[in-house]
Amino acid sequence: MSYQAPVKEMLFVMNELAGLAQVAALPGFEDATPETVQAVLEEAAKFNQEVVAPLNVTGDKNPSTWQDGEVRTTPGFKEAFRQFGEAGWQGVLHPQAYGGQGLPKLVATACNEMLNAANLSFALCPLLTDGAVEALLTAGSAAQQQLYVPRLLSGQWTGTMNLTEPQAGSDLALVRTRAEPQADGSYQLFGTKIFITYGEHDMAENIVHLVLARTPDAPEGVKGISLFIVPKFLVNDDGSLGARNDVHCVSIEHKLGIKASPTAVLQFGDHGGAKGYLVGELNHGLEYMFIMMNAARFAVGMQGVSIADRAYQKAVAYARERVQSRPVDGSAREAVTIVHHPDVKRMLMAMRAQIEGARALAYAAAGACDMAHHHPDAQVRRDNAAIYEYLVPIVKGWSTEMSLEVTSLGVQVHGGMGFIEETGAAQYYRDARILTIYEGTTAIQANDLVGRKTVRDGGAAARALCAEIEATEAQLTAQGEAGAAIGRRLAAGRQALLRVVDFVVTQTKSQPNTVFAGSVPYLKLAGIVLAGWQLGRAFLAAQRRLDEDKAFYGTKQVTARFFADHVLTQAPGLATSIIEGSEDVLALAEAQF
Amino acid sequence: MSYQAPVKEMLFVMNELAGLAQVAALPGFEDATPETVQAVLEEAAKFNQEVVAPLNVTGDKNPSTWQDGEVRTTPGFKEAFRQFGEAGWQGVLHPQAYGGQGLPKLVATACNEMLNAANLSFALCPLLTDGAVEALLTAGSAAQQQLYVPRLLSGQWTGTMNLTEPQAGSDLALVRTRAEPQADGSYQLFGTKIFITYGEHDMAENIVHLVLARTPDAPEGVKGISLFIVPKFLVNDDGSLGARNDVHCVSIEHKLGIKASPTAVLQFGDHGGAKGYLVGELNHGLEYMFIMMNAARFAVGMQGVSIADRAYQKAVAYARERVQSRPVDGSAREAVTIVHHPDVKRMLMAMRAQIEGARALAYAAAGACDMAHHHPDAQVRRDNAAIYEYLVPIVKGWSTEMSLEVTSLGVQVHGGMGFIEETGAAQYYRDARILTIYEGTTAIQANDLVGRKTVRDGGAAARALCAEIEATEAQLTAQGEAGAAIGRRLAAGRQALLRVVDFVVTQTKSQPNTVFAGSVPYLKLAGIVLAGWQLGRAFLAAQRRLDEDKAFYGTKQVTARFFADHVLTQAPGLATSIIEGSEDVLALAEAQF
Repeated sequence: MSYQAPVKEMLFVMNELAGLAQVAALPGFEDATPETVQAVLEEAAKFNQEVVAPLNVTGDKNPSTWQDGEVRTTPGFKEAFRQFGEAGWQGVLHPQAYGGQGLPKLVATACNEMLNAANLSFALCPLLTDGAVEALLTAGSAAQQQLYVPRLLSGQWTGTMNLTEPQAGSDLALVRTRAEPQADGSYQLFGTKIFITYGEHDMAENIVHLVLARTPDAPEGVKGISLFIVPKFLVNDDGSLGARNDVHCVSIEHKLGIKASPTAVLQFGDHGGAKGYLVGELNHGLEYMFIMMNAARFAVGMQGVSIADRAYQKAVAYARERVQSRPVDGSAREAVTIVHHPDVKRMLMAMRAQIEGARALAYAAAGACDMAHHHPDAQVRRDNAAIYEYLVPIVKGWSTEMSLEVTSLGVQVHGGMGFIEETGAAQYYRDARILTIYEGTTAIQANDLVGRKTVRDGGAAARALCAEIEATEAQLTAQGEAGAAIGRRLAAGRQALLRVVDFVVTQTKSQPNTVFAGSVPYLKLAGIVLAGWQLGRAFLAAQRRLDEDKAFYGTKQVTARFFADHVLTQAPGLATSIIEGSEDVLALAEAQF
Repeated sequence: MSYQAPVKEMLFVMNELAGLAQVAALPGFEDATPETVQAVLEEAAKFNQEVVAPLNVTGDKNPSTWQDGEVRTTPGFKEAFRQFGEAGWQGVLHPQAYGGQGLPKLVATACNEMLNAANLSFALCPLLTDGAVEALLTAGSAAQQQLYVPRLLSGQWTGTMNLTEPQAGSDLALVRTRAEPQADGSYQLFGTKIFITYGEHDMAENIVHLVLARTPDAPEGVKGISLFIVPKFLVNDDGSLGARNDVHCVSIEHKLGIKASPTAVLQFGDHGGAKGYLVGELNHGLEYMFIMMNAARFAVGMQGVSIADRAYQKAVAYARERVQSRPVDGSAREAVTIVHHPDVKRMLMAMRAQIEGARALAYAAAGACDMAHHHPDAQVRRDNAAIYEYLVPIVKGWSTEMSLEVTSLGVQVHGGMGFIEETGAAQYYRDARILTIYEGTTAIQANDLVGRKTVRDGGAAARALCAEIEATEAQLTAQGEAGAAIGRRLAAGRQALLRVVDFVVTQTKSQPNTVFAGSVPYLKLAGIVLAGWQLGRAFLAAQRRLDEDKAFYGTKQVTARFFADHVLTQAPGLATSIIEGSEDVLALAEAQF
């Protein structure tokens, strides 16, 4: 089996670190009993392992192809997507009223981890559809919700996000696509959108494009952007399909990775105008798009965890099988499998520890998101919302940066074979490379972390998390030498993080460049400390349950200590770079580079 | 121009850091006057920029192809290689007696940097030929030298290194290729070799394979390996070509990168036996191969510098041209070129500083190599040999690991465009990925650093370097605030390195696994501290010459300080991981991964 979903580990994280019991006790989540959750995860594991994962290499070797405006996806994708929709996987976290399962985001997050690990290219179609559903449920009219959402959840149709234009990458102020109002209340859209994931394909009957555009009288900049539904085929009131709309895929990109997922250039209105329907209010498009983007950013962070875990599993399998060289300690006279060599162990531990840390942090964030939306107490909702908001750029930024390192180590464990495409390790290295870029580069996540997530609340969310970390340190100190060692590293990390939070809060207004020069290192520092904290909590939980399963919980404890000794130890150096090193970042003029 | 050789920077490093004047004063290097060296570098820049660099993308798009045992290289490669040979570039550092230029390794290193930056795939053919020449000059008979070396230096023929077999990757003890002695003093070889770079191609008239094999009565393991010349076409005494030899390319690999360079599977003796000629003495093959490998390891380290610099140049060009978003400090109302954004500056500085540090370290090593071979005083030769030997695994390991980070940052600077293959940034990311693997993985370099380069001399070479670093710190402290700041970081780095050297020297014998668990972090620490030292020296040299050219030397100073604040700051954390973190590396049993 090329992918084995780590269901036991997932349940451990959900139960012990992400508060599944509290989430399941929230109103509306009565169905999320421990038995149901376990059954859902096991079903998801089976489906993704057996149906989706085998198509991963196929997709890399036979990418989507474009001809005359049509995109043919990899053989097998269409059938797998039909099964995906029919089994209800698109609707895990969406309302039962529209055909979803209405389960917590925490549960959906575990399902998404499996789907993405099984096949990053395939998983992008549901990921984007999720975003479209989210936007329609938030801002769409009742009629729009009833028309589109059930068909998106069933897999009959899929969704896209149309933001980027050739002259406007991350900078949506420059969006130029025009939307001209028509007498019947609809709009005609004209313009070009690029980098549209699954912007055209053959896996569903219709594609529901959600498109940012400007109406003729709209204000300049981001305050003049509205959101429109532009279906590939026009939709009659009964949901049946009408005429082909004037949105056409003029090409798809030739990419480094995720080759099976078609990345489309879409042309709107070249033949008279693409019919579109306003979502929500005029000029509020960016606000709605941020709803989709926040969900998508979290989801891309999970993609980092997923691809890293897939790479780890492959590296472990190879390290157990490949015989090479005698042990350095002379303990065997013959060559041994490379998993016995200290540096291979170090690489595997570095992969494993960072994956487990990133997973725990993301699941904890998902749990906070569920609390933020469903807890009966408004203050608890607000507190959890603040924590979730603080964590989203970190989950997106740190988990994806981590995935670059981990997939690179995955190649390295394979030695020369890692560089040969047939081996498969290189595909993860290529696929992962988009994750720190799309849905906002790491720098954009870091700007969000600095500006809206740290400065705006005066560092309150960050300090609240640090107070929790401090409590964990105290518990660790009471747990013998290993616990105390982790506690010490965590304390040093927390102090480094607090120094940086103070720096950010006090300096951003007076010297923004100085702070933004260290924004990505700040994001990295926060990721390290928060993931290290989660693994410290994992150490404590494992200590409580050690007698139940020494191998499993013992491994958790070793992993937590590895993270503390090999990753958390980077924290003080990062704080120094951020606080004392900004001058060197900014010193050179353009011509001096 | 897609590549601009940094000749001014190279001359600065050669003159101020690598001791070109002292090298040029060595017996035999009388021709290496400042004028000649500058002229050679400028000629090399012109040739590589104009002839070799334009073929880089061509090679990626039209890799070498295999058909019926023949390999056709990328269109344009054959003609460029003819020009390369005719202009004498293969012979820069080889003896004039065989048609070479007899220049110092320091000068050849700069030329090689340019060639590799221009086209990594193309440059591999000369790189391997260099190794073959080196082995023949060291171990070949006078007749072999006269027959093969001039034709290898003229580019008429090329050379290869045949080590790896399917069951024997890095572990040469497992080599099985047989060499059966014949009545005429030659041998018949039988076996399979894999991963043979330029093992078959159409760029030269003949290919001189240097092959490791065992004779029938040879002892087991590495002490029974001999080295043989196996030419593709048999060679008559006058150098004319005879019959096709029984060595055949049965396939080439489909690789992640360096696609234009054919990586061959060679079959020896499938049709009766491949005729081979013993080089040097029986059973000394590994020793000779190490001569080639040491030169090749250094050269691969330079490939890391080269590809990183190429990626940096492309990223700078894009950052100067791409307009995106307003400045965070509100200094402009319109979107600006991204080179003005703090995080883009941070990425470019991180690329630049590490490239300059790695270049300076490698050139300094090359200078030491020249002193080690040519200085009239035996003690000076020995001292420099020890320093060079210590530095080779660091130049190979650290510079190539650095190139993975730098080429990844190169993609990141390009945003979404970086993921599109046509942009070209992704090619560097893919090409670089082999560098930490071939000619010995980073772990193998680190084992060499621990065992033969640190433990064997009781840490003497490492401590001698640290004493020099300490002297540089004192000089820096006298140079104002910036110098003093660099001096402090360097002192912290040196102390961290010394702690680790003590740990390695005292613990390797009693607990080898504990030390080898930290061998790669030790290599990384040594690379950071030694490169930081070179940039500290660069800061001092720039201070002396600041008035001559404020922009150039001012930039050197900023770069040195960036390295100190953002890279050297990682040193103490690494030392802690190495000394206190080995238990967690080793704790898991095979089944627990």
